[in-house]
Amino acid sequence: MPSETPIAVTPLYPMIYEPLMRRALEEDLGRAGDLTTDTVVPPEARARARLVARGPGRIAGLPIALSAFTLLDPGLRLLSAQRDGDDVAAGTLLAVVEGAARPILTAERTALNILGRLSGIATATAAIVGALAGLGTEIVCTRKTTPGLRALEKYAVRVGGGGNHRFGLDDAVLIKDNHLVVAGGIRPAVERARAQVGHMVKIEVEVDTLAQLRELLDLRVDAVLLDNMPPETLRAAVEMVSGRMITEASGGITPESVRAVAESGVDMISLGWLTHTVKNFDVGLDFEAM
Amino acid sequence: MPSETPIAVTPLYPMIYEPLMRRALEEDLGRAGDLTTDTVVPPEARARARLVARGPGRIAGLPIALSAFTLLDPGLRLLSAQRDGDDVAAGTLLAVVEGAARPILTAERTALNILGRLSGIATATAAIVGALAGLGTEIVCTRKTTPGLRALEKYAVRVGGGGNHRFGLDDAVLIKDNHLVVAGGIRPAVERARAQVGHMVKIEVEVDTLAQLRELLDLRVDAVLLDNMPPETLRAAVEMVSGRMITEASGGITPESVRAVAESGVDMISLGWLTHTVKNFDVGLDFEAM
Amino acid sequence: MPSETPIAVTPLYPMIYEPLMRRALEEDLGRAGDLTTDTVVPPEARARARLVARGPGRIAGLPIALSAFTLLDPGLRLLSAQRDGDDVAAGTLLAVVEGAARPILTAERTALNILGRLSGIATATAAIVGALAGLGTEIVCTRKTTPGLRALEKYAVRVGGGGNHRFGLDDAVLIKDNHLVVAGGIRPAVERARAQVGHMVKIEVEVDTLAQLRELLDLRVDAVLLDNMPPETLRAAVEMVSGRMITEASGGITPESVRAVAESGVDMISLGWLTHTVKNFDVGLDFEAM
Amino acid sequence: MPSETPIAVTPLYPMIYEPLMRRALEEDLGRAGDLTTDTVVPPEARARARLVARGPGRIAGLPIALSAFTLLDPGLRLLSAQRDGDDVAAGTLLAVVEGAARPILTAERTALNILGRLSGIATATAAIVGALAGLGTEIVCTRKTTPGLRALEKYAVRVGGGGNHRFGLDDAVLIKDNHLVVAGGIRPAVERARAQVGHMVKIEVEVDTLAQLRELLDLRVDAVLLDNMPPETLRAAVEMVSGRMITEASGGITPESVRAVAESGVDMISLGWLTHTVKNFDVGLDFEAM
Amino acid sequence: MPSETPIAVTPLYPMIYEPLMRRALEEDLGRAGDLTTDTVVPPEARARARLVARGPGRIAGLPIALSAFTLLDPGLRLLSAQRDGDDVAAGTLLAVVEGAARPILTAERTALNILGRLSGIATATAAIVGALAGLGTEIVCTRKTTPGLRALEKYAVRVGGGGNHRFGLDDAVLIKDNHLVVAGGIRPAVERARAQVGHMVKIEVEVDTLAQLRELLDLRVDAVLLDNMPPETLRAAVEMVSGRMITEASGGITPESVRAVAESGVDMISLGWLTHTVKNFDVGLDFEAM
Amino acid sequence: MPSETPIAVTPLYPMIYEPLMRRALEEDLGRAGDLTTDTVVPPEARARARLVARGPGRIAGLPIALSAFTLLDPGLRLLSAQRDGDDVAAGTLLAVVEGAARPILTAERTALNILGRLSGIATATAAIVGALAGLGTEIVCTRKTTPGLRALEKYAVRVGGGGNHRFGLDDAVLIKDNHLVVAGGIRPAVERARAQVGHMVKIEVEVDTLAQLRELLDLRVDAVLLDNMPPETLRAAVEMVSGRMITEASGGITPESVRAVAESGVDMISLGWLTHTVKNFDVGLDFEAM
Repeated sequence: MPSETPIAVTPLYPMIYEPLMRRALEEDLGRAGDLTTDTVVPPEARARARLVARGPGRIAGLPIALSAFTLLDPGLRLLSAQRDGDDVAAGTLLAVVEGAARPILTAERTALNILGRLSGIATATAAIVGALAGLGTEIVCTRKTTPGLRALEKYAVRVGGGGNHRFGLDDAVLIKDNHLVVAGGIRPAVERARAQVGHMVKIEVEVDTLAQLRELLDLRVDAVLLDNMPPETLRAAVEMVSGRMITEASGGITPESVRAVAESGVDMISLGWLTHTVKNFDVGLDFEAM
Repeated sequence: MPSETPIAVTPLYPMIYEPLMRRALEEDLGRAGDLTTDTVVPPEARARARLVARGPGRIAGLPIALSAFTLLDPGLRLLSAQRDGDDVAAGTLLAVVEGAARPILTAERTALNILGRLSGIATATAAIVGALAGLGTEIVCTRKTTPGLRALEKYAVRVGGGGNHRFGLDDAVLIKDNHLVVAGGIRPAVERARAQVGHMVKIEVEVDTLAQLRELLDLRVDAVLLDNMPPETLRAAVEMVSGRMITEASGGITPESVRAVAESGVDMISLGWLTHTVKNFDVGLDFEAM
Repeated sequence: MPSETPIAVTPLYPMIYEPLMRRALEEDLGRAGDLTTDTVVPPEARARARLVARGPGRIAGLPIALSAFTLLDPGLRLLSAQRDGDDVAAGTLLAVVEGAARPILTAERTALNILGRLSGIATATAAIVGALAGLGTEIVCTRKTTPGLRALEKYAVRVGGGGNHRFGLDDAVLIKDNHLVVAGGIRPAVERARAQVGHMVKIEVEVDTLAQLRELLDLRVDAVLLDNMPPETLRAAVEMVSGRMITEASGGITPESVRAVAESGVDMISLGWLTHTVKNFDVGLDFEAM
Repeated sequence: MPSETPIAVTPLYPMIYEPLMRRALEEDLGRAGDLTTDTVVPPEARARARLVARGPGRIAGLPIALSAFTLLDPGLRLLSAQRDGDDVAAGTLLAVVEGAARPILTAERTALNILGRLSGIATATAAIVGALAGLGTEIVCTRKTTPGLRALEKYAVRVGGGGNHRFGLDDAVLIKDNHLVVAGGIRPAVERARAQVGHMVKIEVEVDTLAQLRELLDLRVDAVLLDNMPPETLRAAVEMVSGRMITEASGGITPESVRAVAESGVDMISLGWLTHTVKNFDVGLDFEAM
Repeated sequence: MPSETPIAVTPLYPMIYEPLMRRALEEDLGRAGDLTTDTVVPPEARARARLVARGPGRIAGLPIALSAFTLLDPGLRLLSAQRDGDDVAAGTLLAVVEGAARPILTAERTALNILGRLSGIATATAAIVGALAGLGTEIVCTRKTTPGLRALEKYAVRVGGGGNHRFGLDDAVLIKDNHLVVAGGIRPAVERARAQVGHMVKIEVEVDTLAQLRELLDLRVDAVLLDNMPPETLRAAVEMVSGRMITEASGGITPESVRAVAESGVDMISLGWLTHTVKNFDVGLDFEAM
Repeated sequence: MPSETPIAVTPLYPMIYEPLMRRALEEDLGRAGDLTTDTVVPPEARARARLVARGPGRIAGLPIALSAFTLLDPGLRLLSAQRDGDDVAAGTLLAVVEGAARPILTAERTALNILGRLSGIATATAAIVGALAGLGTEIVCTRKTTPGLRALEKYAVRVGGGGNHRFGLDDAVLIKDNHLVVAGGIRPAVERARAQVGHMVKIEVEVDTLAQLRELLDLRVDAVLLDNMPPETLRAAVEMVSGRMITEASGGITPESVRAVAESGVDMISLGWLTHTVKNFDVGLDFEAM
């Protein structure tokens, strides 16, 4: 776990995540509801459930996860013991849910599924960010997110101390190799984009070689994506750019290679696997009758 | 990769996955659409895109992924070179998309995100299934799925040769430790469930010890979940059960330990990480102008 | 009315029925709202409305019906005088709604429509259940429900003392005559199903003749649906099965014939008309100014 | 069955009913789809299904019902042998569906559920309309419809030869007894409504007594609802009105009493049970392999 | 501004406008939320925002607009200083919002967009209504509304003192010139409509000439739409009708010509531009830290 | 009308606008459909409808408008005579719709409502753009759009030759006066934003005075919004900025004052009234039987 102070990321408004959580609950309840709880647990039973981290990591999505309980039963009482962005050890109490036993048991899996996924992303991001301590290189995620969860997964990356690249195809221009295939070269592509997009839209171009980078240099774009370059080439690229645009390394970078990449001096490194290959953060629900 | 013949899993109907794919496309297009493609790529440009496996694995979700292209532009032509369930080597052509260049580039990421996720699940499942070759133990997934994607992720497990445990809280009874806390013991819990659920609903009970298992034996439930038991205990449990109900091992089982667990003779092993900790299957899109 | 103690059926969570009630209110309000109430009733008028049973029956869906009032105006005060599952006589007060007169009048029909339908189902079910008193035969409903209301109508059957057969095509296997047409016989059909469905899924097979039943006997399925058999044949079937699987009678059974069918000894009787041919339970709204 | 020529009612546009049919299919498929068909029926099996009336009646909703098949699989071929509004005898072929066996079996129940309900309404309506042959009294339905199905159920009444009263609270004014409680009498109620509603909105008032009717007479409303009056009183009311407004009888009218009520000379009779107490019209699906 | 007392129009229920406001907020928040506020404004900052009219006009939609704030953050406190229907001068305080600074700033534009539009409609309507003071002619809007906002825009017209023509194609019959093209003349068109629509549905016919009007006179419809007639012709038409049906002038009427049209004696004038050509009512948000 | 060549703006994908058009059709059809057309127009009637411009202007949204016809009846045939971006004179034929008369008449208003609104925006934008011919100043719209129509209205501005400012709160930072109130000055606000937003996000700051502008100059933001400054002050501001960032004038600019503002040398002018105060573009539907 990185020792840095967790960053206070702006929380998401409930109207952003409640529709997803509602769909998730409906997905689990189906048409017949929770057959087990509804038949086995007496209606009057009351309980206290403690969400506890089963391993070390950075918490993300705790308010989102807890909303599963109150969406199902607004009468449940929630107490958060940690906040998003907190680094916790195994065994740390994250939150307590109290009230009717049935809805606690019924919403449990929905709550843990989202908490495990978002905290998993935050934890992996924080680990990488920690691995680059002292280098000033930013770690950013990509558009390789789970369908329907982009806003939440990008939030988890922020909680992990990373940054967000584009949220979609509509908030910045990123001219990639495939665009160049049909655009007739870097210059016409950049010029066409610049002529048509709004004045608040930045432009980035992906290059595979230093030759392409040279061609790009006097087109004054905002950023360059240096794709699949070894550290030495990256170093040369950074030197060539010399601060005239933001340099971003991408492609084939692993937890093992990331520090070497960062030491090339690039401004940022984008990692698809922060969101597409997630290790679930394990959270347990300790349950006691009241 | 397992060498067994891939199983012909029933494909999902488009009405099951199209709403999700539509949401995923909308999530990427936002309000302004694909700024890059719309400005850089000439409207008359036509292209052929080849989806190619970047590594070995089992394909799942190919028709689902390809629907991203035709939902955006029904005029695009799709050709599948592989089918769900096929095992492929790195470099294998999966499908070809032909037509207007713009919608191909715009739908690319949405298509690859779902294909990578579902094929990743199928590949991991197939690997585990292959590791148990000859043992007759079934591998099943759990309800630890991504919010909104349960039907698709469970489909991917089937494509991988695994089975599906419950799809939700409503299709079977699974009495867990937390239920027992408020139910007053195994017997009353089972009896209450049996008295109230429909005749087409099966009942499974989770036990942590052989003592609990003994208590369960004469209650004639359909299955027992043997939670977090070491192989020796599992072996004793299987012997004790002696075919009177289905035995399922669960909890803390890793790819490394799974064969040892299976050799205990349990009927099935359930693995949450099949769906909660997914390694993306890497698919590339090779793009050429036509 | 049966004299047995009403069963305490687990109530549905509001998130299950509120979307339907919202749609129902929108359907009645249209774009212009309640022209009559909005123009005729002064905004400051306050009222007390009493929902009163107009005939004897079993109440089902009271909290669902009352939600129409508070969805329209959260300021209305609700008091339930009866609970779902209660048997009432004509004239029994069911609930009181107090507050602004306008929303009470506007939501009235939406509330009564669902209450009448669900209580009608519960009442009819309770009557049949009562008619079988002492026999131990269970009454269950089918998938012949109103589009969009399956969860609610099946709940009403439970409130009436009946059981639920499958909630959909996905929670159990029921091999019917039409499946057999293309499956090449009972044995291959059962074997194919068993090989592919999850371990928590039960299998039932429909048979029309004792010959078919004999074929089925050693296939060890969970239940048999004895279709359209006269009581004598049913009796023979029950004897042949001799407890090895659940026996269900179905097809052409009327309130008049149901006891004779039950006396054949079958475990359960499924009745499509419990939900497809509903006699509305009449509830009135007595309205007084406050 | 009435012998009159069926009326050519304008069919509903698919965009009106497809969302409901889609929800109904989803309700039946759940997350796991049709377990039976998907495992028992070979993917290559092709079939022909014939929808056949199991009793005499008037068909309503045939295109709506058939859309279940093509929404699931656009490749199925539909052939309608009857049209909405046709009167059929038991055994009449209604439609044929041909193509892949699986989607035919999976969509069957959804199709039959809506066809049975709508044809049931049309058949009951046609019977009442037939019972009034020669009298010129119109039969109309009310707002006592199933939540979510109002447009369809009102369509079925039209197919049955009946008329439609209000579709909602927003297309006409109907001042009822409860409105009068808070409005301070018939005159102020009518005047307030007239002053505020648009010029294309008609006004009807419910009266319980001839005294009330007299008070209403010179207020020049469009229609009067004569509530719960015996035939003699109705006759007196019709005479008193003498064509100055439309007269509608309502309340407690049964199939047995309807002709006597009509003979009072009222212009129309509204019947809540046309839609709230529906006898399902039985349709079977005869299935053969191709 | 007209000096007449504002009319107390029945307010819309939140369930009518909240889905639209929610969509509007989502449209502004996108996937990443309010980048500016979330980064620039400290989470603990509290503020008071005053909505102030920037010009004179009639307020409509204030509760609708304010719901943007509480949908985003239910903790914000709202105080309305004016009510819908109030005429205000430039500088008038309309409402105060207090609480966390962030959600106030984030919801501001959504709130002002709807308030400006609806108050703009009400203001323009009130101006026209005022211009006809003393004439008794009613001003009504048409179906030329913004897609998705019909209920709200028609409400704003009512708040402006105008009336509503049809809310949709389904609440009254309006036979226009194009219908006549395929209907074979006025008489068959009217007769066909009358024979088929419900008894609570009014019929209006559009005529272009006095000759057509003459043909219409003895068909006893409820209203006539006199299309594009100069004041003299309208006067002749009104005389010809002589109170036997409602007369409505429409087509090409401007603020300048409307009084002359009204002086022809028509009962009402319908104006498409009340809703299709809206001048936004300018409201500012004065913001201070607390 | 400006004489410049219309710009080929990328058309919107149907999946972007079809949900809105579907809602608009549903809004007009209600529950009972088009009472007039359904009763007056024979089902077999066929017609040809010609959409004709009633005045001069620039067309925007023609494919969107025409989708109303085919969403209602996929059998209708559409022929576009003009394309979005074309400048037309009064009387110009825009498109022809052929097929069944009923759906043409029923979808007419929905089609014309959106076409009139979007073409109105494009026409007003084109007029302003034309008024600045030769000056190189860009005209851009704001977030003052109709709830639910932002993507479409911003598209119409592009078709008019204008540019788009932010699409929402999430695609760029715009620090306004109200943000500064709680942020403690320009410098901390800019620094906080820069530290937290992604590298592809631009930053603009609103200033009211030249003093504020001076403070902003060395903070190296991307753009400055010069609020409510008279042309002389704008000129001084442009000189002070001297190309170091984009200059945008905003606030109180009218069609009359816009050229004087532009001559100050600002890079762009943003105009809220392009979208909040729309003059409908009048399109007629000429209808003939076939």
